[in-house]
Parts: sequence; C-alpha cells; structure tokens
Amino acid sequence: MNQTIKLQLNHKSIRKFKTDAIPQEIIDTLVSVAQHTATSNYAQSYSIISVTDPIKKKRLAEIGCQPYIEDAAHIFIMIADQARNAAIVKEELEDTIIFSSFDKFFIAATDAILAAQNIIIAAESLGIGGVLLGSILNQIDQLNELFEIPKFAVPVLGIALGYPDQSPQAKPRLPKHLIHFENIYPKWENISLELSEYDKIVTDYYSARSTNKRIDTFAKMITNWSLNTYQGRIKMLEYIQSKDLIKY
Amino acid sequence: MNQTIKLQLNHKSIRKFKTDAIPQEIIDTLVSVAQHTATSNYAQSYSIISVTDPIKKKRLAEIGCQPYIEDAAHIFIMIADQARNAAIVKEELEDTIIFSSFDKFFIAATDAILAAQNIIIAAESLGIGGVLLGSILNQIDQLNELFEIPKFAVPVLGIALGYPDQSPQAKPRLPKHLIHFENIYPKWENISLELSEYDKIVTDYYSARSTNKRIDTFAKMITNWSLNTYQGRIKMLEYIQSKDLIKY
Repeated sequence: MNQTIKLQLNHKSIRKFKTDAIPQEIIDTLVSVAQHTATSNYAQSYSIISVTDPIKKKRLAEIGCQPYIEDAAHIFIMIADQARNAAIVKEELEDTIIFSSFDKFFIAATDAILAAQNIIIAAESLGIGGVLLGSILNQIDQLNELFEIPKFAVPVLGIALGYPDQSPQAKPRLPKHLIHFENIYPKWENISLELSEYDKIVTDYYSARSTNKRIDTFAKMITNWSLNTYQGRIKMLEYIQSKDLIKY
Repeated sequence: MNQTIKLQLNHKSIRKFKTDAIPQEIIDTLVSVAQHTATSNYAQSYSIISVTDPIKKKRLAEIGCQPYIEDAAHIFIMIADQARNAAIVKEELEDTIIFSSFDKFFIAATDAILAAQNIIIAAESLGIGGVLLGSILNQIDQLNELFEIPKFAVPVLGIALGYPDQSPQAKPRLPKHLIHFENIYPKWENISLELSEYDKIVTDYYSARSTNKRIDTFAKMITNWSLNTYQGRIKMLEYIQSKDLIKY
C-alpha cells in the first residue's frame, strides 16, 4: 500500500465541480503524463484536444446529453489518431491503405485510452476530480464536425476535470472471482446464483443513496443498459469506416 | 509534482526481469486496483486472466514472438468482455444481439484498457516493472484457444510484470504541439518540417543507445512500422466478428 495505490482504490467519478480553474501549468503536466504513457511500437498514435472554448463546451454537453460537461474546468478529447502517422508516411509512400486495418485503428485506440487513464490518475493525485466521457460518442457526426477530425482519426473518450464539489460513494464492484480468473476463461453456468450475494450489495447501495434511490439488482441494471443503447451510438461503426479505418 | 506524477513521468517499459516472484498479496492488490478503475455505465465489461501455468507462459511467448514474456514473474491478459454480461442478460432476455454492436465491443475494450493502465501504474509504484503486450494479438486464434475465450469476449492486451533487471532510457516523445491541440484538430501541412527538430532528437537517441544502435528518423520508423504489420494481426477483424461482435 502506498499513496498511489490508495488514490487508485479511492477513485470515484466526479460530475459536480467548483468554479475554480485548473492552472495552465497543471494542464501541461497532465499532457506530459499522457505523453509518457506506454505507446504501441513507439508510434504515439493518439492526440489530445483541450476544449477551452465555452461555445464548444456547451455543444459537448449537448452532444453527450450531460449538462455537467459544460461546468467542467477543463475537458480533454482523446483521439485514436493515425492521421498524423498517415501524413508522415505520405511524404515517404503513396499508399496509406496500411492504416485502414482494424489492427492499426485498435493500436491507436489503445494508445489513446491508456493515456486517458494516466491523465485521470495524475489529476486525482493533485486533488482534481473527473469523469471519463463515453457520452461524447452519442452523436459522433456532430462531435466530428465540432473539432474537424480528419480521415484516419477517431475521438474515443472525453475527460471532464475540475475541483470536486461532491463526494460520491464508491459503487460496489463485482466479486473478484467473477472478473479475475487463472489460466482459463470460466464457463458461465448458473451466473444468477453466483451473482445473488452481489445483487444484495448493489440493492443496498442503491437504496442507501441520498439521491437517485432505486431498488435494483446488477442483473436488471445490465439488462436495462443493454436494451437502452443510445441510438446515436449505433452509427459508430459506419462513422469509423467513413474515416477509412477498419476496412479489413 | 508529487510521487504519483513523478512515477508516471518516469515510466519505461521493462522487458528483462529478475527471477523474484511477485507475492500473491500484490497480485490481489493489482486486481483490486483494476476493479476500481472507471467503467462505462457501471457494467464492468472486462475480465482479467492471470497466466501462472508455465506451459501457457511459454506458449504466450511463442504467440507474441517475444521470448522475455516467458521470464515475466506474472502475466495478466486483459479481456474486453461482454460474455459475462450476455450470460447475465440471457437469464432475463432471449436475444443477445444487443451485444453485437461496435459500441458494446468498444465499451468493453475501453474498460479493459483503462484497467490495464491502472495496473501498470500500481505495479510501478511498488517497484515492479512491466510492459504492455500488444504482441499477444499476433496469433489471435491460438491465443483464443489457449484460454478458451468464449463468444462476446476478446483479449485486447497483455501485461508482463516482474522486478526490473534493466534500466532502459526514456524514449523521446513527439513535441507537445504535435499531439496536443486546442479546440480544433490541426491540418497536417509540411509535417516533415514540423518533425525535423524531433527527428534529430530521435536520431541522437538511437545512436547513443548501448544496444540496438541504429540511425533513424521518426518518419522512417513510422513508415517501416506501417509497412511491417505482423500478418497475424490482419485476422483481428475477422476474429472479432467470429465472436459475434462488431456485427453492426
């Protein structure tokens, strides 16, 4: 146990922020941390857009259907980016079809997502709170237009940061034996039986909350989540293919 | 600046390990850290396999074409996992086609990759070194067979950990203005000009290395990397589709 691990075990998403700004020096440090994240084949196939324009922050909140996005002190958009690499290669080769494989897209997405987690940890170590924004993908065409994302590049995750103005409770996680296995993936037989203990914990968690009380089990929560996919998300594959990615 | 950020800025991939084992207590802590990573919609759509069987470690080294994998004290395989969720939902609904969207796969991959970065940071905070293994995807069919990965689940990244027996130099990263932008994605015009300063740094870095000396620029390195995709990786999309994922 040490400070870093204590921080990691205490992670909670923060969605309510004080009005204090994050000093530019800290933003620069967070970007440096992102840059020192592991990157596949040294290719650094990711980019980061800082959203500081209030109009674009407002549009992001609309795209994500999350009003709190507008109140974040700082927003990063993490981009799976083969566009810069393709621009570099273009000066050496004519053909950029090599960037159209699923593999190359996935390498870029992995780079961007690893860097996102590193940014969150660094921010939290400085007393900043934040939340990862999958919701920016809800209306991917509008997101694309807002930041003029080119061919071969795809936004994969947003990060909203600010000084916390709430102290949410930690959500109880699945029992370890349901997510961590040794040497082989298990068969899921009688999973509802396996889940029964956890479902009690989840039900207790939700009924004890001061806001957004509900009686729920993990199974019901997952079922509802599965069914209620935001319709804009269905366009993701088509969008990525329109970027000349995942062609094969 | 603090201990956590210092650690993050000092990250280097470690590929040579002492023979010391990692205590089980630490492995448990690393899994706890993974569990406390942010997860999309609370769905916890990832799983982790610990590879402790020496025969499987040897096979992994062959699959990844990286002999050092076998010498790692511990290996985690991170799995983008909608299989457990699908098993849960199956007891409530008949149809699991909802898990076949690109969006659901990508949520699972994001969960697994964020958790991987959290594991690496926690391990490094304890004096353990490691490297993320994209190479386990080089022969995805064999990887799948080795761990009996079911429908709706896809391994996305390995993590090799151990006590460091090397002190590699930090690889110089791209200049900040080439990866971090404000409010808009830039046009890549004259990128070779933009890169010229960095290319000198990269060339110096490679020529100063005690092992694996080579004279190289970033542009040449990216071009070679783009061209030399490991052939097994081309099967990734087909493989994922065979898992009933990314159907739409």
